[in-house]
Parts: sequence; C-alpha cells; structure tokens
Amino acid sequence: MTDHTAYRIESDSLGSLSVPQDAYYGIHTARAKDNFRAGGRPANLLLLLAIVRVKQAAAEVNGRIHALPQKKAQAILEACREILEGRLDAHLIVDAYQGGAGTSSNMNVNEVIANRSIELLGGVKGDYSIIHPIDDVNLHQSTNDVYPTALRIAVIPLLRQLSEELAALQEAFQAKEREYADLLRLGRTQLMDALPILAGQSFGACAKATARDRWRLYKSEERLREINIGGTAVGTGMNAPLDYIYAMADVLRELTGLGLYRSDFPMDTTQNMDVFVEVSGLLKAAAVNLLKISSDFRLLSSGPAGGIGEYILPAVQAGSSIMPGKVNPVIAEMLGSVAMRVIANDTAVTLAAASGQLELNAFTPVLAEALLESLELLLRGVPLFRERCLSSLTLDEARCREHVERSGVMAAATIAYLGYDTASELAKAAAASGRPLEQLLLEGGWMTGKQIHKVLHPLEVTKPGIPGRSQWTVRNMEGGLSQDELE
Amino acid sequence: MTDHTAYRIESDSLGSLSVPQDAYYGIHTARAKDNFRAGGRPANLLLLLAIVRVKQAAAEVNGRIHALPQKKAQAILEACREILEGRLDAHLIVDAYQGGAGTSSNMNVNEVIANRSIELLGGVKGDYSIIHPIDDVNLHQSTNDVYPTALRIAVIPLLRQLSEELAALQEAFQAKEREYADLLRLGRTQLMDALPILAGQSFGACAKATARDRWRLYKSEERLREINIGGTAVGTGMNAPLDYIYAMADVLRELTGLGLYRSDFPMDTTQNMDVFVEVSGLLKAAAVNLLKISSDFRLLSSGPAGGIGEYILPAVQAGSSIMPGKVNPVIAEMLGSVAMRVIANDTAVTLAAASGQLELNAFTPVLAEALLESLELLLRGVPLFRERCLSSLTLDEARCREHVERSGVMAAATIAYLGYDTASELAKAAAASGRPLEQLLLEGGWMTGKQIHKVLHPLEVTKPGIPGRSQWTVRNMEGGLSQDELE
Amino acid sequence: MTDHTAYRIESDSLGSLSVPQDAYYGIHTARAKDNFRAGGRPANLLLLLAIVRVKQAAAEVNGRIHALPQKKAQAILEACREILEGRLDAHLIVDAYQGGAGTSSNMNVNEVIANRSIELLGGVKGDYSIIHPIDDVNLHQSTNDVYPTALRIAVIPLLRQLSEELAALQEAFQAKEREYADLLRLGRTQLMDALPILAGQSFGACAKATARDRWRLYKSEERLREINIGGTAVGTGMNAPLDYIYAMADVLRELTGLGLYRSDFPMDTTQNMDVFVEVSGLLKAAAVNLLKISSDFRLLSSGPAGGIGEYILPAVQAGSSIMPGKVNPVIAEMLGSVAMRVIANDTAVTLAAASGQLELNAFTPVLAEALLESLELLLRGVPLFRERCLSSLTLDEARCREHVERSGVMAAATIAYLGYDTASELAKAAAASGRPLEQLLLEGGWMTGKQIHKVLHPLEVTKPGIPGRSQWTVRNMEGGLSQDELE
Amino acid sequence: MTDHTAYRIESDSLGSLSVPQDAYYGIHTARAKDNFRAGGRPANLLLLLAIVRVKQAAAEVNGRIHALPQKKAQAILEACREILEGRLDAHLIVDAYQGGAGTSSNMNVNEVIANRSIELLGGVKGDYSIIHPIDDVNLHQSTNDVYPTALRIAVIPLLRQLSEELAALQEAFQAKEREYADLLRLGRTQLMDALPILAGQSFGACAKATARDRWRLYKSEERLREINIGGTAVGTGMNAPLDYIYAMADVLRELTGLGLYRSDFPMDTTQNMDVFVEVSGLLKAAAVNLLKISSDFRLLSSGPAGGIGEYILPAVQAGSSIMPGKVNPVIAEMLGSVAMRVIANDTAVTLAAASGQLELNAFTPVLAEALLESLELLLRGVPLFRERCLSSLTLDEARCREHVERSGVMAAATIAYLGYDTASELAKAAAASGRPLEQLLLEGGWMTGKQIHKVLHPLEVTKPGIPGRSQWTVRNMEGGLSQDELE
Repeated sequence: MTDHTAYRIESDSLGSLSVPQDAYYGIHTARAKDNFRAGGRPANLLLLLAIVRVKQAAAEVNGRIHALPQKKAQAILEACREILEGRLDAHLIVDAYQGGAGTSSNMNVNEVIANRSIELLGGVKGDYSIIHPIDDVNLHQSTNDVYPTALRIAVIPLLRQLSEELAALQEAFQAKEREYADLLRLGRTQLMDALPILAGQSFGACAKATARDRWRLYKSEERLREINIGGTAVGTGMNAPLDYIYAMADVLRELTGLGLYRSDFPMDTTQNMDVFVEVSGLLKAAAVNLLKISSDFRLLSSGPAGGIGEYILPAVQAGSSIMPGKVNPVIAEMLGSVAMRVIANDTAVTLAAASGQLELNAFTPVLAEALLESLELLLRGVPLFRERCLSSLTLDEARCREHVERSGVMAAATIAYLGYDTASELAKAAAASGRPLEQLLLEGGWMTGKQIHKVLHPLEVTKPGIPGRSQWTVRNMEGGLSQDELE
Repeated sequence: MTDHTAYRIESDSLGSLSVPQDAYYGIHTARAKDNFRAGGRPANLLLLLAIVRVKQAAAEVNGRIHALPQKKAQAILEACREILEGRLDAHLIVDAYQGGAGTSSNMNVNEVIANRSIELLGGVKGDYSIIHPIDDVNLHQSTNDVYPTALRIAVIPLLRQLSEELAALQEAFQAKEREYADLLRLGRTQLMDALPILAGQSFGACAKATARDRWRLYKSEERLREINIGGTAVGTGMNAPLDYIYAMADVLRELTGLGLYRSDFPMDTTQNMDVFVEVSGLLKAAAVNLLKISSDFRLLSSGPAGGIGEYILPAVQAGSSIMPGKVNPVIAEMLGSVAMRVIANDTAVTLAAASGQLELNAFTPVLAEALLESLELLLRGVPLFRERCLSSLTLDEARCREHVERSGVMAAATIAYLGYDTASELAKAAAASGRPLEQLLLEGGWMTGKQIHKVLHPLEVTKPGIPGRSQWTVRNMEGGLSQDELE
Repeated sequence: MTDHTAYRIESDSLGSLSVPQDAYYGIHTARAKDNFRAGGRPANLLLLLAIVRVKQAAAEVNGRIHALPQKKAQAILEACREILEGRLDAHLIVDAYQGGAGTSSNMNVNEVIANRSIELLGGVKGDYSIIHPIDDVNLHQSTNDVYPTALRIAVIPLLRQLSEELAALQEAFQAKEREYADLLRLGRTQLMDALPILAGQSFGACAKATARDRWRLYKSEERLREINIGGTAVGTGMNAPLDYIYAMADVLRELTGLGLYRSDFPMDTTQNMDVFVEVSGLLKAAAVNLLKISSDFRLLSSGPAGGIGEYILPAVQAGSSIMPGKVNPVIAEMLGSVAMRVIANDTAVTLAAASGQLELNAFTPVLAEALLESLELLLRGVPLFRERCLSSLTLDEARCREHVERSGVMAAATIAYLGYDTASELAKAAAASGRPLEQLLLEGGWMTGKQIHKVLHPLEVTKPGIPGRSQWTVRNMEGGLSQDELE
Repeated sequence: MTDHTAYRIESDSLGSLSVPQDAYYGIHTARAKDNFRAGGRPANLLLLLAIVRVKQAAAEVNGRIHALPQKKAQAILEACREILEGRLDAHLIVDAYQGGAGTSSNMNVNEVIANRSIELLGGVKGDYSIIHPIDDVNLHQSTNDVYPTALRIAVIPLLRQLSEELAALQEAFQAKEREYADLLRLGRTQLMDALPILAGQSFGACAKATARDRWRLYKSEERLREINIGGTAVGTGMNAPLDYIYAMADVLRELTGLGLYRSDFPMDTTQNMDVFVEVSGLLKAAAVNLLKISSDFRLLSSGPAGGIGEYILPAVQAGSSIMPGKVNPVIAEMLGSVAMRVIANDTAVTLAAASGQLELNAFTPVLAEALLESLELLLRGVPLFRERCLSSLTLDEARCREHVERSGVMAAATIAYLGYDTASELAKAAAASGRPLEQLLLEGGWMTGKQIHKVLHPLEVTKPGIPGRSQWTVRNMEGGLSQDELE
C-alpha cells in the first residue's frame, strides 16, 4: 500500500521528523503520538480546551504588555477561538496515558495554535518563524503552571453543572416525597420488617442526601479557584515578568467567568494535588449515595412476585426474551455502574496525587483523566436516572398496604396504650392469621374504631411521638394514659 | 482444668445462659461475645464511651420528663460517670466485627450501665427488676439512633484534635521555612534538575498543603453535628415522646461541649452514611499530602553518598548492623505507613457506606472501626513526625550548594540578558566542567561580578519575575535590556 | 506518683537509655517503643513468632557450623522455645506502625531472645557479653532477609488453615445442596422473577465458588515457599558463610514443616513484594464471593412479611426491642463486614508493595499487618458463618412454592409444547389471577395431568434441555413434537 | 437544520420507534442508545466481537442440529465473518455504561447480525421475518450465558498476549542483566547507601518479578476456560436442547482456538464473577511490579546533577523549554500511570463482582470495561516501555563507581578479615576524606594490593559468602582466617 500522505519535515533538539502536511500539530506532538500509545485514545478534550483558554489569556496578556507583537497576539487569539469552537479537535491527539506531567498535551495545544495562527497570518504550517509554539504561544509559561491551571478551569464548570444536576435530582425526589406523602409503607432495617414509614419519607431521605452532595461539591470549588499560572516550572515564577503574572489571573477570570485567583504560593499549587483528591473524594461520597439509591430502587422494585414489588419502575426497554413482560431495573443499574466507576476513579486520583515528588507531580495526566471521567459520568448518568427512572416511578399501593398489614408492625403503635406484651401478642396473631390488626383490636375490644383510626393513622405512626397523641409528652401523662384521652 | 468462675443465669427471648457472676455485662453481651469473634478485639473504646454519653443524656432527659424515676435516673447517671472514667472498660467486650448495625455494642453498654446501676442501688448484678438494660437504660432509644449519634460524638473531638495537630505541623513547617529562608537549593521536576528554589520554600509548600487539610477537616465538622437521636428505629421517632426528643440534642450538646443539633430529617441521618465518607475522603486527602511529604523527606535525605543527601534527618535509632553509622528515615516511613493505612481505611468506609439498604446501614460498625482507626493513627503519627523528624531536621548546606552549581540550572536566570542560546551553552559548559557558572560568566566577560551578584542572587532567582530585575516588566523593557540596567 | 520500677542502663551507637529491669527487651526496643506509637498496639504476634522461628534456625545452623559456641546456641534455642510457647509475649511490644522495613520488630525479637538466653546461662538481663542480640542472635542475618522470610512463615500456615476452613464451608454448602435437592425455588436475575431453580442448586453454586477460592489459595502457597534468608541486607548474601546459607532453608523447612526453599535470586525476594499482592488479591476474590453470599442470604431471608422470606436464618440473638420476634441476619452481616475489611486491607497491601524502592521495601510492616489481619479475620469469620448461619439454615418451603406459583415463570417450561405466545398468555393469566399454572393448563385443555406432572416436574425445569424431554435433542424432534411423545 | 436521514419503523413489546434506514442495528439498540449515554463511548469492541464469536458458534450448532434452516445459519455465519473483519464496527454503538448485565450489547450484536444476514438473503433491513435477532440469532441463548462466555473469549487472548509481552520484557531485563554483569553499583535500602551490588543484578531482580507475573497470568487462564454457554437465563439450561448445549463448547473451542470447556455447574458460572477478580488481582500484582520498576528507573536516572544519575534513559522527546538538554523519564512515567489505572480498575472489578445478586450479576458490563481496559493498557504500555526505555538504557559507569567509592560501603567486605571495628573506622575515613578505600587499606598496611584485588573484587562482594573466599565456610575456617589464606 502506498502512502500518499504529503509530509513536511520539522526538527527539534532530538533531530528531525516527518509530520503530515495537513496536520496542525507539529514535531513534539508527532513524537508524543509515537511515544505514548497505551491509552488508545486522546487526552480528555475538555482539558485540552481548558489549556487553550490559558493560551488565550497568555496571548492577551503578552500582547498587552508588549511581550508579543499585536499581530502575533491577534493571530493566536483567533486560532484559540477556532479551536474552542471545536474546529480542530481532530488535531488534539496525544494519548491519555502520557508521561511528563502534561507536557505533551501542552505542546499539542501549542503546536495546533501556532500552525493555525501561521495560516491566519498567511504562512504555511511548520514555518515557526511566523509564530513559534514555544517562544510565542507558550511564552512565559511552563507545562507545570499551565496544566494544573487548566485542570481547574476544566473541573469547575463540570462541578457547577453537576451541582445543578444534583439540585434537579433533589427536586425530583422532593416531588415524589409530596406525591407519596400519605402512603404508608413498611420500613425495613437490616432488610427485616421494621416500623411503618410513609413512602414519601423515603424519597425525602434521598433528597436530603442529594442536597448534602450538592452543597459539598458546590463548596469544594473554593479551593479550586486558586491557580498557579505565572509560577512557571517550579512555582517560583522565574523569568515570567511581573506584569504578566499579575494580569493572568484577571484575564483568565474574565475569559472563563470563573472566580479564579492567583495562588499566593504557586510552588504549593504546582506540586500538591490534594484539592483534586478532595473533589474526587466528594464525588465518591455522592457515588456512595447514588449506589445506595440504585440499590434501594432495585430492592423495592424486585420480584414482583418473588420480591418486594412496591416500586414500579418505568419500562425503558424490553426485558427478557424467555420471560414475557419482564421489566428490568436497567436505569438504576446504569446509575450503580456509574457510581462504581467513580469510586474506582478515586483510587486512580489518590494514587496519582500521592505520587508527586518534590517540585512536581508527574502523574497529573492520569489523575486528570480519572477525575474528568468521574465528573462526566455523573453529569450524564444522574439526569438519565432522574428522567428515565425516578420521575416516572409509581408505587403499587396495594402491595405497600399488604406488606404493612401482614407484617404486624402496626402493633408497635399500640404499645403506649396496651403495653408491650399485649401489643406483641397482637402482632404475632396478625402475622400468623394474616388478618388486619385493626380487626383484631376491634374484636378483642382493645380499642374502638375511632381510637384505632386515630392511633393507627398513617400520619400518626410515622412522625415523632406516641401515635395518636402527637402532642403527648411524658410530663403531661403522669398518672397514666386513659382510654378516653384518645377520643 | 476446673473452672472456678461463679455464674449467674440470665434469660432473653431465645432462652437462658450463664454469665460470669462478676461480669457487668449480661446475656445479650454474652451471646454477642460468643457470636462475634472474627476481629479478635473489642469494638473501639472511644465509640463505646460515646454511646455511654448518649445513655447519660437519655437518663438525664427521661428523669427530667418523669419517664424514669429519679432514683433510677440518678443511678444510671452515676454508673455512666464511672464508665466514662474508665473503670469498667474490661466489660466492654463485644467484638469489633459484629453484625447488626451496632446492636451488640449498644446492648453491651446498656447492660454494663444497668448492672452497675443496680449495684449502686444496692441490688445484685442481673436483678433487672431494679434497673432494666432495655426498659430503663435504653428507654426511648434504638441502636439505630444511638449508634450514628455516638459515632458523631466520637469523631468530632478527634477531628478537632487532628485539626490542632495539623496546625502544629503547619507551624513546624513554617518555622523551617523561616529557618531556611535564604538557602538556595536545586528544584526538581520529574526528579530531574530544574530551577533553583529556596530550601525554605519547600517547607512553605508543605505548610500550605497542611493548612488546607486542617481547614477542610475543621469545616467537615458542620455536617457531623446533625444527630438523629430521637428517630428511634427507622428515623420516624415513633414511640419516643416529643419532650424527650426535643431535649436530647440540647442535653447532649451540654454534656459533650460539641455543637450538636437535632436532624430535621432523622430518617436520612439514620440510613445515609455519606458524611463519614466525606470525612474519610478528607482524611485521605491529608494522607496523600503526608505521603508526599514522607516521600520527599526520604528522597532529600537519601544516600548520603549515593543519593541526594540534602536533608539530614535526626537519628532516632541505630541503623544497620552491617553498615556502621547508617541512619534510616524511619519516622518518615512510619508516617508513610500511617498514610497508607488511612487510604486503605477509606476503602472500608466507602464499601460499608455504600452497602446501606433501605432504612438502615447494617455495616456501620465496620465503617466506624475504620474511620476511628484513621483518626487515631493520624492523631498519634502526625505529632511523632513533627517532633522526631521535622523539628530537628537540618540541611547539608554544602551539598545543597554543590547540586545547584554542578547542575548549571542558574544559567536559566541569565536568559533575559544573554539570550536562550548563550545561557544554554553556559549551562552545558558548567555541567560538563563542574565549574561554577559564576566563574564562566566572569571569564567569558558575559557579566561583571556585580551583575552576577545581582542576577544570580538566591532571593532573585526564586521569586516571580526576571532575576536581577524584580520590578521588571516587559512594558518598561521595550527596546531591550542593556547591561547597565543591571547595575 | 513515684515510679518504683527498677531500671538498668543500656547503650547503643546513639547513647544510653534506661530499660525496666524486668524487661526482656533492650535498648533498641525501648527506642522503638518510644519512636513508634501511632498504631497503639504491637505488631502482629504471629509474625513475631515467625521471626523467632528464623532465629531458632539460625542458632541451630550457626551452632552446627561452629560460628556460634554450642553453649550459646543451646541457650538461644531454649529461649526461642519458651517464646514460641507464649511465655514472653508481653515483651514483644514494638508498635505495628513502625518505620524501617521491620528492623525494630527484628531487634525486639533479638533482644528478648538474648536476655532470656543470658538468664538461662546464669547471667543478668542486659549483660550482652554473654549473648549479644546482634552478634549472636542476629548472626549472619539482616532484617531484610529475616523479615520477608518470617512473613512467609507466618502466612503459609494461615493460608493452609483458611484453605481447610473453605473446604469445610464448601462441604456445608454441599450438605445444604443435598438437603434441598428437590425443593423448587424462584430464580431471580437483576432481582426480578426469572426461571425456577432448585434451592439446592443455589447452595451448589456457592460450593463451587468456595471450591475455587480454596484451590487458588492453596496454589498460591507455591510462590510463598521461596525464601530469601541468607541474602543479608540487599540479597547478595555478602558476609553470610555459604554453609550457613545452604543450611538455613533446610533447617527452617524441618522446623516449620513448610516446604520452604532458598530463593535462587534473593535480591528479587528482598525487594519485590508482589507475592503478597497476589495472595491478598486472592483473599479479596474470596471476600467478593463471601460478600455475595452474605448479601444473598440477607436478601433471601428478608422480610419475612415485606421481603423474600425464603430462607429462615437461625436466631443467634434477640432482634429488636421495639419489634417483638425480629430476627436479624447478624452473622451474615458479620461475614460481610469481614469481607469489606479484607477488600480494604488489599488496598494497604497494594500501596505498600508498590512503594518499594530499589533494594528494599520499607513498608513491609504495614503490608504484613494488613495481610495477616485479612487472614485472621477470614479464619475466624468463615467458620462462625458456617456454624451459626449456614448449617442451621432452613427454608420456608411454602413461601418458596408460593413465589414460584404466583410468578407464572413455570409457563416458560411449556414453550416447546405450546409455543411462546400461548405460554406467555398463560403466564400472565396465572400471575393476574394468582391461580396455579397447573390448573390453568388443565382447565384450558392444554395438557393432561400426567403431561403436566412430567413437564413441570421440579427436576425437569431445573436441568439442561426441554422440560419433560430430558433426552430431547432438536435432531430427534424433526417433524415436531407431538403431545403423546410426552407420555 | 433539516434531518435528511431516512428511517424505518421497528417495534417491540414497548411500542414502535424510528431507526435510521441505513442502521444495521434495530429497535433494541436504538432504545439502549437513547437510555444509556453516561459513558459517552460504546462498549469495548473486543467484547462485542467475542459476542459475535458466540453467535457464530450458535448458528453453526443450531444449523447442525436442524434448529435453524441451513440458509439462515449460513447467512448468519457470513454476517458474523463480516463483522469480525471489522466492517460493521460503526453499528456496535451501545454505551459502555449500560444496565442489564449486558443485554443491550447482546441485542446490539443480535440486531446487526440479523440485519446484515437479511441483506445477504436479499431482504431489506428490518424485515425480521427473514432472520430474527432473537428467534434466530439469539436462538437457545440468553444474555446471561452469552455475555460471561464472551468476556472469557475476549480476555483469554489478551492474557496470552500480555504473557508474551511480559516474556519479552523479562528477556529485555535479562539482556541488561548480562550487559551489566560486572558493573559495581551502590545498593540502597530505605534509599540509604547500603552494600554494593552489580548493576546487572538489579535487572535480574526485575526479570524475576516479571517472570512471576507472566507465570501467574498464564496460569489464571485455567479458570477462565470454563464457560456457561448453554446455561440460558439462570444457569439451569432450561429450554436449550441437549445436543446444542453439548456442541457449543466444542464449536467455540474450534472457532477460537482457546481451550474452552463447558462448566459442569453453569449456575455458578452465571452468577459468580470471582475469576475476573482473580485475574484483575493478578494484573494488579503486575502493576505493582511495574510501578516499582517505573519508580526505580526514575530514581536511578534522577538529577543528573542533583540526583542519583546512574541510569541514562534514552531521550524520546525534548524536555524543558526553560532547561536546555533536560531529558525527562516520560516513558517510565507513562508506565507508572498505566499501572495506577490498572490498580484503580481493580477497584471497579471488585465492586462490580461483589454486587452480584442471586442468580445474576447485573454489573458485569462495568466489570468487563475495567478488566479489558487494564489488559489493553498493559498490552500497549509494556512494549512501549521495553522498546523506548529499557532496551536503549545505558549506565553512567563513572557515576556508579563514584557512588560506591565515596559511600565507603566496600569496607563491609573486610569485616571478616579486619573485624567490625576496624572496617567501620576505615569506612568512616573513606567517606570523610573522599579517598578510595583501597588506598586506605594499602596505606594502613591492612591488606596487600593482591589481597585487596581479591577481596574487593566486584564479583566477590556481590555474591553469597565472605568476599575473597567464595568457597569459605565457617567450618573450614576454625582457628581463624590467616592473611595468606587470601593469596
């Protein structure tokens, strides 16, 4: 097979190399492409675009302080705009599993910007005398300040979106809480029949947990806003002019709309990755809640004949070819699998962050991939769960009632009136006979219908206090509780 | 061997059992002791004492609302005091690996309190007609509200202490930062010679990271202060009187001095364990920083002949019997091993938290053990590192200087004056010849001694900007930088 | 408070120190005790005793090759015997979280042996002119060959015992498989009603998984038998006489009864810890199976009113004080919590093993603690589960039948005869009406009673092939299956 | 924007849906595509192709037993061949994060095969009366037996390839072992100067560890060869004809060339995923070794001025723009990042495998993605490391010598002759003065030149025994070692 690709020759300190004529990337990218092939896929695009943002800011600032001629600066800015519009994605190709703390991704961006800028200035790709990837595009920067800054720029908006998605999830749970605000359901502890609850309360508990996740992720942004751009190679800022350094955070803040600010100790920000461990740990906490939600939804919709069957999940696809009508909880399972991956990614983030050495962490790229994957998975998985599972969920009310009745757990609500022993006997009798507790209470003359209605009322047995006496306190009951106090 | 132990017989719903006559625990504990033996050690004492705190509050409140006769309440309170003083630790024996969401640890505490209270009232152990472990000590409670509340009561003070230990660590780093504020040292990225830094700056970066850890842990307390006591079995609060419920948080707040408040949705707090995942995740973030610190200290003290040898760690024990005078970085290694365990414990916390089902999490005990172990390890390991490694650390200044000199990295500071190519040539020449850059600059007539002194000054090459021109900005340099601007 | 402890003074290269007069340990242990306090508990005793085994072998060999006078060798051997009998456990005190690759534990053992030997020879503790902890007890050894060897000696017997416990577990599952060999139960996939299975088959699947765990653990011993004793500090074996080196593995093999053999490349065995990662990974695989078993047992015993309720777990302790008669699956939960810890310990093992550097792994102690804890937890947890949960488990046969019937899944067995559509209609009708499928088949004239008996027979619907035609193959059915072929 | 795509209408039990006219997939895939979008990328192609293999075998067998007309079987077989050639990859689109234990991926394959078969038989896509995705392509199968079988078919060849790559890596290490068989280098324990070793020995230790990894992975295949095809939905094999069941493993064995065999208990194989945990655990063990190798290579090449600098890694890309001539260990870092991801993937595999419930594991897809990613990462990363880092690595021999000399560690080799104290004095003198030990020995009259040559010979100090007396044993030395024995 003949290769009809046209090539240009580029060179660097190691020698020269052919680069496809139509490639916007250059020799550094070509070497990296060849060196790094383990991942089989390019680095995360959102991160690369965030690097472009940094380049945009640097061109702006370098132009403004006259470190870069206006013509060059404008060309670079225009090239950045084009890349941010997604026009040159195909040239951002360096593998996700790269050594070098992100140097190759940084150089990939530098080269694509340079070559596109060269074209915009009427030159041909590879003529770096017009715009140089390092001397012009990377001017006053180092991978070591660009990459951690860009990672923050990539992460913050995802965190905000996720926070919004969690808010929407919380609202959807609250809608269900209201929808099932008076449906009595059996509570279960250690999976065993326990006390009655309202179906709505379960959703309320999910809403609360989701609200915490939302809040935590929202707050974690604070520490991410501190950026080390201007720190150059080791965080001291050597060789970056002061007016460049001071302007960068301001310009980036404007460009991104994020509240970024300059680290007062960039050496720390360059070498320590604990803020990402923090964020990943909080994503893991969210994943733990989602895993429990996924698990509970699957438990409550199980069966239906041979399981709990209280939840009826919407059918989003045909179930089994052998079992007609089988509806599987596939969306809840999808959510669970997303949560598992987020937990696993936290291991990668932790390992990478712990592997920093001295003035740099060489493993930031594998950290970045894992963290961004977690954010993207949750961002896509959470709304799918909300829309396709939670929102159209219904409950089998008869089944809910049946479980409460045959469990005898309602007898616990009579303990304050009949004593523990009698209540216990009634519970056993109800469970054994399968007859409603109400009936046994009436027949045995333990309570009148009115009393039963008051004491065993769903809203009474599921709120704090003694059922039937929601204002009851021990103090006002001294001398014992008489039957007619119930009236 | 004859067993001379005297026994008493106790009974529960499963039958009767002999309990050693002098045991303060009772039948539930005896069964649990026999059922649960996997861990080979009792549950964490701090957690058990926190449960005692809850019992204390409940006796106080139940006495106050007349749900418990004053005599009983006083006896229980006195028994609690004794246990909190550590007098009955030997009777808190249920294994750390217990099923049942903590029921057995709760019952162990109930029984020890009951039996000690009985004695205080003049009775004999086992005569539960005087004080009953469940009806009196556990009155209005459930393991499911006691245990999560107690875990928070155990965790918060440890978090505060750890926060203080991290503050002390931060200060120790800052003291070193000041101590080595003008010692030039070689910076290294990807372990390769990079730019010069100040030795003090390294400690400053550690101090900053430690400050973040401290802040994060300090803030995480907020969510821990919300307690579910009063929620009883499933969080609805059924059968707990309202005045009891409302008073419990207040009394616990007083007793513990912690800012505890009643959950507005105890069902959530009963079943969701994400706050502990959050805390454990933050401990993990701290562990990651400590692991990097441990690793950096070991790298920088390596050799000394065949390593970096810039740090001289204090000798705390004899090194090798084969190698005379060998000093090993054992305290830094200890810190690293603590950090590894904390990371591993986070896995346990995550798994346990994710395994909650419906209205309860049955795996809270294994979560609690892991979380408390992490806190205790850090609480003991961090000050050891500070006292025995960091505080008496010194630097080999000659070695630091030698590394800077022979690396040629100072040449980077001349780029703005001599251009990249000349600087690069000088760097290579310095590295190849082993001669100081200063000498080459002088000999080659590139700079005067005064200029060299100004440009290559340690404080110039380690701060933002162009060395020798700390006020320099690109704007005021247009037209080029002349040699005499250096004067 | 006055300290009435009597002290003796010992000295080492760092200076001198008081050691309690009655302590068998010496100055190195005293320093280590003071340096290392993070864990709050001593290193694993089984490991320390395995170190004693190595000392025993070394004394034996050094005596035999005349490197050690017979008198000394005999005294050391006698001291080792006493320690192995458990008489001096209280003096093995170095903290579990120690730096130094195990040096302090090794020295602790050396000193206790030395001081006890000194006494046996009529001397007083601390008079190391009689027996020296390093020159005599540690003769020709280094922590770096002693510790990894001892860890293997500690691990192998535990692995063998665990293998036996898993065999016993497998047998217990097989006994249940036989016991319920013909009880039909509903199979569930994704927790939804699926096809019928035999209750016994479930246990059979557990038995198979357990058998794999057993086999894997049994086989992993192979790589553990290779020991690096004789390699001294870095694995080269410098300064250890050849006849010592060659004899050590033989003597250790005899002493321990384990098939130990000398590494042909001790430098590898000294620095690489992957064999422990392997073993821990296999323990994790076992934990995964145990976690699923624990989870399935809890699912199948859930309710009973509001859950599956097919399994009746033995009551080992009283359940709830609020819910009379509640039996919780506490033993299964205990097993699950053990499994979670084993999984978490694998993280510690992995982190520690990955942190080896050059000729040694300084984190072997934290690895050893985690690995031994996993083994001990499983060794104690697995038989508890077998004895207290599995062996006395019974099934609620009526409930099992009811689930199969009301699910309509048996209709799937008629597909080959009635076609998918008819079978599907019948399934729906059965599920909707709650009437047994058999009745519908009879009433509709779809099958005769005899045919029904043959096709829907429990043993037919749960084995490979077309129910009712267990010898049936497509080939011999060409031309269609007639009704009377069923007779 | 107008959508000019032509559509066809397909329907299933949930209703009807438009499918792009040129799509080979059908309605089930279309629904799944819409339902599952979290991953943002399709399921692993190797797994999908392995599913095609199963379909191929089923068509072959179903044709052979006349369950499927020859015409249909042949069309399906031809379609499978085309897909295996990679012609229809673009139609295998279901997202990696899917619920349903793999149902959607299975249906995706079924539909693509069906539609391509239909075309081959002259029909139009969507006319399932010609070939039906379920009734024909999926005949006698269930996702629950197809998917676990396919995963094994995908994994085994990757394991074999990885085993070969590890063999190549081992050989490359052995080549280096030979190349540096007599270069003395400083050994380091806890990163501190220890005893001398041969540079070759380090590579030998890596080779040994790699050999273990290779062996373990090779052996793990055994358990993967057991497949559950024929077990249908829950492993009982209901409704699959016996001759189909028996033939499937044989045909798959032929088609794949892998030693697959039919599980004797498919219910186990359907629900238990521990074999994948085993394999992933072993990949993790390999990753741990690779991480240490990566770390050691980076340590040994560190500096060079301010680090160890004994290894000279080949420059594969330009290092820093600020630091001229900087060569970073990017390939070793890439290897490290691959290893970290493999360790993280093990967490996902473990979580997913532990989440199996009753007769199925719904999380097999997330497990499969993680496991296959680990295999592919290692398969691509390991040879890159071998080719681009290890094979062209050289050593700085002068630096190696310098480290040995200035460390004074060679003095340890004289202990047997001069005693510990003298040796120790000489070591200190050598380290302090920076003069070679040889010189001090000569000048002090401790040894003759000939003796020195013999005792301090690189090959003597790096092998078992007393340097200079490689045949020396304690026994033949009684009476002391005289100077002339050295001659």
